[in-house]
Amino acid sequence: MLIAKVVGSAVATIKDEHLVGTKLLVVREANINGEVTGKPYVAVDTVNAGGGDLVLTAAGSSARQTGITKDRPVDAVIMAVLDSLEVGGEFTYRKS
Amino acid sequence: MLIAKVVGSAVATIKDEHLVGTKLLVVREANINGEVTGKPYVAVDTVNAGGGDLVLTAAGSSARQTGITKDRPVDAVIMAVLDSLEVGGEFTYRKS
Amino acid sequence: MLIAKVVGSAVATIKDEHLVGTKLLVVREANINGEVTGKPYVAVDTVNAGGGDLVLTAAGSSARQTGITKDRPVDAVIMAVLDSLEVGGEFTYRKS
Amino acid sequence: MLIAKVVGSAVATIKDEHLVGTKLLVVREANINGEVTGKPYVAVDTVNAGGGDLVLTAAGSSARQTGITKDRPVDAVIMAVLDSLEVGGEFTYRKS
Amino acid sequence: MLIAKVVGSAVATIKDEHLVGTKLLVVREANINGEVTGKPYVAVDTVNAGGGDLVLTAAGSSARQTGITKDRPVDAVIMAVLDSLEVGGEFTYRKS
Repeated sequence: MLIAKVVGSAVATIKDEHLVGTKLLVVREANINGEVTGKPYVAVDTVNAGGGDLVLTAAGSSARQTGITKDRPVDAVIMAVLDSLEVGGEFTYRKS
Repeated sequence: MLIAKVVGSAVATIKDEHLVGTKLLVVREANINGEVTGKPYVAVDTVNAGGGDLVLTAAGSSARQTGITKDRPVDAVIMAVLDSLEVGGEFTYRKS
Repeated sequence: MLIAKVVGSAVATIKDEHLVGTKLLVVREANINGEVTGKPYVAVDTVNAGGGDLVLTAAGSSARQTGITKDRPVDAVIMAVLDSLEVGGEFTYRKS
Repeated sequence: MLIAKVVGSAVATIKDEHLVGTKLLVVREANINGEVTGKPYVAVDTVNAGGGDLVLTAAGSSARQTGITKDRPVDAVIMAVLDSLEVGGEFTYRKS
Repeated sequence: MLIAKVVGSAVATIKDEHLVGTKLLVVREANINGEVTGKPYVAVDTVNAGGGDLVLTAAGSSARQTGITKDRPVDAVIMAVLDSLEVGGEFTYRKS
């Protein structure tokens, strides 16, 4: 899974019927300190994540293994909000 | 999902029978302002997208989770037309 | 799907039994003008493509959604020969 | 599979119900000498790996083929701890 | 599929039970002349490949479509040993 930061949201009225009711967030990959490093992509939120949250995203068919995303044409899902990351014995990120 | 811009279309007469009837569009990945940044790839359109539209594309097996693409040998689908993107509390893109 | 050009072929006598009878072509990703830009990879041909043809390739599980590649250990398939690409209102590629 | 080194761990209280009970480790891709070369990502541990271990990770749907990860929304799994790597006839890595 | 060269092997005693009995080889992506160009990764051998062999590897769920890898948590498989590659009408690689 990728460490990513929620930076925004997307709105789409015209969409496949299987997307109706999903919440689309704009995220960017982040490092172990929670700083964004990657380009933006869009993921379906399943855990009520908010702007600035550091999250985990799963890609591909794994993105469809939640109750919310099952059988939907989505290839990225936010399925966890990170409380903390510990690397090398020290906390590199803690949710404030 | 990737944010992408529709830049053109592709025509193929000789193709696998499961591709017959699909509409093939040329898209390029775009940033949160709707400006193209990536190389071109081809995606099956399921939402009647048009040239210049900012869209979302799903890849891999997720691309086959629409009524149009089910069981077809396609690994990229356009399944939403973006109305707007909001990043950092401001609209970075609005469909004109 | 990726736009790719057929540049050669591969021969393998020793292979998984599920590969027997498949035609393996060497392709390289190409731009909208049909010029090669990417590194070589090998795809199973399902549309009788020939050297120099500009084709579409599908990857991953989608590569197994043709009659020829079903249940085979292949992750890239050629499933269309491009007649033309139109970008920005102009033909950028036409099959000669 | 990728050669990766376990560098830390991740904690997430808010998560999809299918993630409950999984152990999330932070890993980074490594070279044949066991030195980290890649950016961090998060994988579910299925083999009781510890900090500093050189491991193999599998991605995508393959990450769900273990008893622990079956049907879960995870796209990376640690499913082996490496004892040694031999390249060019010499050991380039041995677990200490 | 990727063109890759077998450069070594990996040993792992602690592993998921579904990995028991698999032969893990270290490979690196190669060009059409059989020269290594990419970073190392690990693939399950299904064709008795040996050091120095130029092979094809399949990734993702396609890696599980052989008798040896079915239902196993592996995302890369060696499923063919290349005899030759022909590009631009000339042999660029022949197995010696």
